[in-house]
Amino acid sequence: MIINSLDHNDHSWNMQTALELAEQAYRMDEVPVGAIILDGDGKVIASAHNLKEATQDPCGHAEILAIRKAAESLNSWRLLNCSMYVTLEPCVMCIGALLHARIKSLYFGAYDKKGGAISTGHRVFDHPLLNHKFSVIGGIKHYECSKVLSRFFREKRERYKSSKSK
Amino acid sequence: MIINSLDHNDHSWNMQTALELAEQAYRMDEVPVGAIILDGDGKVIASAHNLKEATQDPCGHAEILAIRKAAESLNSWRLLNCSMYVTLEPCVMCIGALLHARIKSLYFGAYDKKGGAISTGHRVFDHPLLNHKFSVIGGIKHYECSKVLSRFFREKRERYKSSKSK
Repeated sequence: MIINSLDHNDHSWNMQTALELAEQAYRMDEVPVGAIILDGDGKVIASAHNLKEATQDPCGHAEILAIRKAAESLNSWRLLNCSMYVTLEPCVMCIGALLHARIKSLYFGAYDKKGGAISTGHRVFDHPLLNHKFSVIGGIKHYECSKVLSRFFREKRERYKSSKSK
Repeated sequence: MIINSLDHNDHSWNMQTALELAEQAYRMDEVPVGAIILDGDGKVIASAHNLKEATQDPCGHAEILAIRKAAESLNSWRLLNCSMYVTLEPCVMCIGALLHARIKSLYFGAYDKKGGAISTGHRVFDHPLLNHKFSVIGGIKHYECSKVLSRFFREKRERYKSSKSK
């Protein structure tokens, strides 16, 4: 179907934008995760990548930074009708923040079996007590999104090993 | 036992400090939750209250603001040996942030059956896959901590009702 094909292209395009932010993070020696937020008209209103090391902020994940920027741009903590594209499955902190921000949809790239809120069984986004729920689609450009992460952690391990053997 | 009695006084004293911050939030028409963070020597290195409405930041919970201040004060995202006292059971976002910050202990006041991470069954702080865990004690000065919250929400409802009847 043409509509599906267009949808697919939109998802790919948006995730590619988030991926480019992840690559920026990689070049800064930050865990390479990038995120963008689109308003209801599909306009990018916020973009960010991990900055935990540069800012020494434990909450410096791409998602949190993008959420805060989007809220600033809309001058409202309610990100109604907004969607997030993020290259890695969010952790519980970021899923919690997306709930507070009343996001409409979440699209993520690579699954994170160890730290991802969904993969580790914390289905916090559709808890029966919630007064807000949002849709979640994972695995968009999974290969590309996980590749940059694998390269980052492999190089970290190699640097660590070589520093130990000196 | 004298030690227990001293412990109890410390907890009470620290929660009272957090409660005074919650009362500041109440006076600003913010959801009245206050939080402080102590370093390993028991020195208060950060204090904050909810500022979600004033800043229109969906992540503007007392805990997140206190964590970010503490990290700034220590110039490190690792809040090793630090403890948080917060007047309300944290939500999943804040519990996630405490994990990322590698906090040592969490003490909270009122239980939150609807939004608290623990009360709603999200035991994210002791998930088997975590490489960091922390201790949690709830119910310290529960009555006082929940009283200010009940008053806040009761007054909100009354204002809403009276605006509807005009």
